[in-house]
Amino acid sequence: MKDAKLIAKSHPAHQTSIDLGHEITVGGDELLIIGGPCTVESLTQMEQVATQLAGSVQALRGGVFKPRTSPYSFQGMGNAGLAILDDIRQRFRLPVVTEVMAIAQIKAIAAQADMLQVGSRNMQNFDLLKALGKTRQPVLLKRGLAATIEEFVMAAEYIVSHGNANVVLCERGIRSFDNYTRNVLDLGAVVALKQITHLPVIVDPSHAAGKRELVPNLAKAAIAAGADGLIIECHPEPEKSVSDARQALSLEEMVALVHSLRPIAEAVGRQIPGLRQPVLAIA
Amino acid sequence: MKDAKLIAKSHPAHQTSIDLGHEITVGGDELLIIGGPCTVESLTQMEQVATQLAGSVQALRGGVFKPRTSPYSFQGMGNAGLAILDDIRQRFRLPVVTEVMAIAQIKAIAAQADMLQVGSRNMQNFDLLKALGKTRQPVLLKRGLAATIEEFVMAAEYIVSHGNANVVLCERGIRSFDNYTRNVLDLGAVVALKQITHLPVIVDPSHAAGKRELVPNLAKAAIAAGADGLIIECHPEPEKSVSDARQALSLEEMVALVHSLRPIAEAVGRQIPGLRQPVLAIA
Amino acid sequence: MKDAKLIAKSHPAHQTSIDLGHEITVGGDELLIIGGPCTVESLTQMEQVATQLAGSVQALRGGVFKPRTSPYSFQGMGNAGLAILDDIRQRFRLPVVTEVMAIAQIKAIAAQADMLQVGSRNMQNFDLLKALGKTRQPVLLKRGLAATIEEFVMAAEYIVSHGNANVVLCERGIRSFDNYTRNVLDLGAVVALKQITHLPVIVDPSHAAGKRELVPNLAKAAIAAGADGLIIECHPEPEKSVSDARQALSLEEMVALVHSLRPIAEAVGRQIPGLRQPVLAIA
Amino acid sequence: MKDAKLIAKSHPAHQTSIDLGHEITVGGDELLIIGGPCTVESLTQMEQVATQLAGSVQALRGGVFKPRTSPYSFQGMGNAGLAILDDIRQRFRLPVVTEVMAIAQIKAIAAQADMLQVGSRNMQNFDLLKALGKTRQPVLLKRGLAATIEEFVMAAEYIVSHGNANVVLCERGIRSFDNYTRNVLDLGAVVALKQITHLPVIVDPSHAAGKRELVPNLAKAAIAAGADGLIIECHPEPEKSVSDARQALSLEEMVALVHSLRPIAEAVGRQIPGLRQPVLAIA
Repeated sequence: MKDAKLIAKSHPAHQTSIDLGHEITVGGDELLIIGGPCTVESLTQMEQVATQLAGSVQALRGGVFKPRTSPYSFQGMGNAGLAILDDIRQRFRLPVVTEVMAIAQIKAIAAQADMLQVGSRNMQNFDLLKALGKTRQPVLLKRGLAATIEEFVMAAEYIVSHGNANVVLCERGIRSFDNYTRNVLDLGAVVALKQITHLPVIVDPSHAAGKRELVPNLAKAAIAAGADGLIIECHPEPEKSVSDARQALSLEEMVALVHSLRPIAEAVGRQIPGLRQPVLAIA
Repeated sequence: MKDAKLIAKSHPAHQTSIDLGHEITVGGDELLIIGGPCTVESLTQMEQVATQLAGSVQALRGGVFKPRTSPYSFQGMGNAGLAILDDIRQRFRLPVVTEVMAIAQIKAIAAQADMLQVGSRNMQNFDLLKALGKTRQPVLLKRGLAATIEEFVMAAEYIVSHGNANVVLCERGIRSFDNYTRNVLDLGAVVALKQITHLPVIVDPSHAAGKRELVPNLAKAAIAAGADGLIIECHPEPEKSVSDARQALSLEEMVALVHSLRPIAEAVGRQIPGLRQPVLAIA
Repeated sequence: MKDAKLIAKSHPAHQTSIDLGHEITVGGDELLIIGGPCTVESLTQMEQVATQLAGSVQALRGGVFKPRTSPYSFQGMGNAGLAILDDIRQRFRLPVVTEVMAIAQIKAIAAQADMLQVGSRNMQNFDLLKALGKTRQPVLLKRGLAATIEEFVMAAEYIVSHGNANVVLCERGIRSFDNYTRNVLDLGAVVALKQITHLPVIVDPSHAAGKRELVPNLAKAAIAAGADGLIIECHPEPEKSVSDARQALSLEEMVALVHSLRPIAEAVGRQIPGLRQPVLAIA
Repeated sequence: MKDAKLIAKSHPAHQTSIDLGHEITVGGDELLIIGGPCTVESLTQMEQVATQLAGSVQALRGGVFKPRTSPYSFQGMGNAGLAILDDIRQRFRLPVVTEVMAIAQIKAIAAQADMLQVGSRNMQNFDLLKALGKTRQPVLLKRGLAATIEEFVMAAEYIVSHGNANVVLCERGIRSFDNYTRNVLDLGAVVALKQITHLPVIVDPSHAAGKRELVPNLAKAAIAAGADGLIIECHPEPEKSVSDARQALSLEEMVALVHSLRPIAEAVGRQIPGLRQPVLAIA
């Protein structure tokens, strides 16, 4: 990784912590647990998610611009969805993460969300990476479906070398020959990335597993492997989710999962923050 | 492939032929052989390529906006390279193909080149596909590094469903566990694509093989498998190429390759057009 | 491939031709086309196959010891099937190929068949390879499901280094993320193997494709790529085949395929032998 | 997995515990940590390993019949190595695990070792599986290099359906396109296997990682994912190991790793047994 000039770890303890706003950071001793639906469907849905998860997670996710294999599938709520995210993050004082698919969307998303996700399909959309490099907005860079560790690291270097040091890497499973799981979660990459770069590294066990019953134990494994956080799909009524229904946890399962992660986090010297007051009073 | 509404073959003989300008088409009985360097390096280089290949190939390739793994690698000549391509195509009356990486580049490339290539890394850059769908420019859509056949077909459907029916598919090898070859050329996908869709399908054996000594026989195999054409990297001095030097043929090897492809083409009922007069007189 | 001491090509024209008996060889100018069912089901079935294919193919295939994923699937006719193969090869004067799964089977198969196939799952069953190395029987070594080219070459070296130089390599598709085709036929490996080793290399498009409609064009591609032959599944009534029904050609389709391969073979300087008299008179 | 009749879990708590002798079991609340070198090199080496690890691990590993890619690589000490293992297990009262490559080796290994390992390359060597099914010896079945979860499960079913219920599954990484790690450790498969079958499932992070610095965190992740144990390569002088030197831990690192695993084990409700008296007094 000789070209990873800016994001290479210079010594074992070299670790960047990134401020997501709302007094939440990622990369320090406290883990970042992000929860929420694949797709923002309505304000009611997001209120329900935020209300139930506020004591358990440190950030919310929800897609409004959706990369779909078919042009005939629902492409997301777009700007109306952004307004919902903006409303939720202010009322619940929680950072929100949402995907950016095009340069033209950056400005609007940056104004209404806290962290911009670059999806797997765009990991080597270099013009998008360069444009994000010219902002100061935290970027959640997901590993490409079949990206090598080196390509992943260099994609992050694109953003940082264009001026934006606020990059969080996300392992989300890679393509393989087996189809019992949707993808193969590559925790070896997480361990490697934590040794190669000083950037925070989080894990998405939902897209890796593709089956909700596999998510909790993969989440535990990710924390034990040294990940700085998790991004997990959950939904008030998973079976009614407009996308990825098979992999979403219910909100109750999500709360239970975060609870079960605490002893693992402690076993590796990390913490998961609890309920921050007076969040719910604001709503 | 139930969602491939517009590009699905409706009967076995359903086949689209696309006009690339300069009296060259792809998808009919005549094969389309595209040759040229990975990267446009100078006008002299491209003149040399065009002069030597004009009697053998039906189109030229050359990258001016280059998707590179590292932000510190040469990113292409950009607009200066486009001007070279424009000059060459007019003087040699040959269509030129070059890669488009961003929506903002479409207009300039469409004005100075004949066919816009969407690279593997952008196969699911859906906003780029939609924008290309709003033009009428021929698009060369390369298969993603680990894209399924269904995802590839649906990426083409994105372009066509947004209004542009001039899409050519290109198989260029997929990622695998072996590294003797750079990628694995998937000719089964070519056979399948020719059965699923009415769009032309061409093959890039250079990026698949990654080693020039493997290219000629893979090119023959592609034609025998039913491909509508080839796109092959070649360079006046391959070992001095600024990128992908290991896989480029010399111009002499390229001319010899096209010569050796003619009997294979005939064996499957296709032709490779010969020298068109008075091309060279123009230069 | 520094360790491929015995099977490495010493100069470009270095090529081994292997005698399969019945005046059939593989590795010379004449291609070897092997046809037959996945599984030997009855004498009547094999007579029908041999009668219809005798003028088109140069060898017959049929499994009697079957490697099946499930222990509850039909495991092959075993010794009764061997007797059928022995009868057929003598009456039709055609070499027969069948799979050997265990050292204990070698003696019986060697006595009743002409070529012993090592299946993909056993490509690195080194004790089996060593035991075959102690015979002089032609071995058809299929590439492992995810074997690198180097591992494949070294598996052949195991057999040759133990004393048996009669090894034919067979590319049959490798595992990948896509499941439109059953496996990905890796013709780049065929081109590479022909450059690395002096052993004959044949191709199995049936197991690669997994769908009969893809087989003919992949067969053509394999010949164009430089393969020394093909092994193709066909069956008197494909839809009634006890295994791999989806990929078998009918006998009529097989005859038509061989016919269509002749011009491709000629285009690359090879021949497919025609009917040998008085084969059918013997029956 | 409809054919996994005998090894399918009939209810969530359905879990088999297997007795390895020497009062050690796998599949219960206590985890099984297996340590030792890739290859048995000498009695002194194994005494050193056993002495240093006796308080930390519950079983020892060491190969005496070695599956090597090249026929010219060291193939293991064979019977002399078996005698060393037998001596060590009796003096240190620890079960030993070693690989069986051929049916002819079963009897000798069963007499001198406690658990027979079927290596990845032989996962679908069905005749070997059937022969092991006729013993009552514990079998450690490693997942094939590119075996699907279903194929892995069915390979275990082969052994059990032939009469031997003492099968332990081992995930050891699968082949992928990336080569930063040697293989991709598939912990999703571990979670899935624990849900599908009642057999114990252990993890080999050493062969997955291929680099010793990645092993400790992958070991932690495996325990957090729910594995019933680990098998880890370690060596008195890793850099002098005759095989796989790059991935072996030193014995000190191994002891430290087991120590660091205890809190993770406790966080998921498991234990790692401590030093059993009077083991060392025996030597």
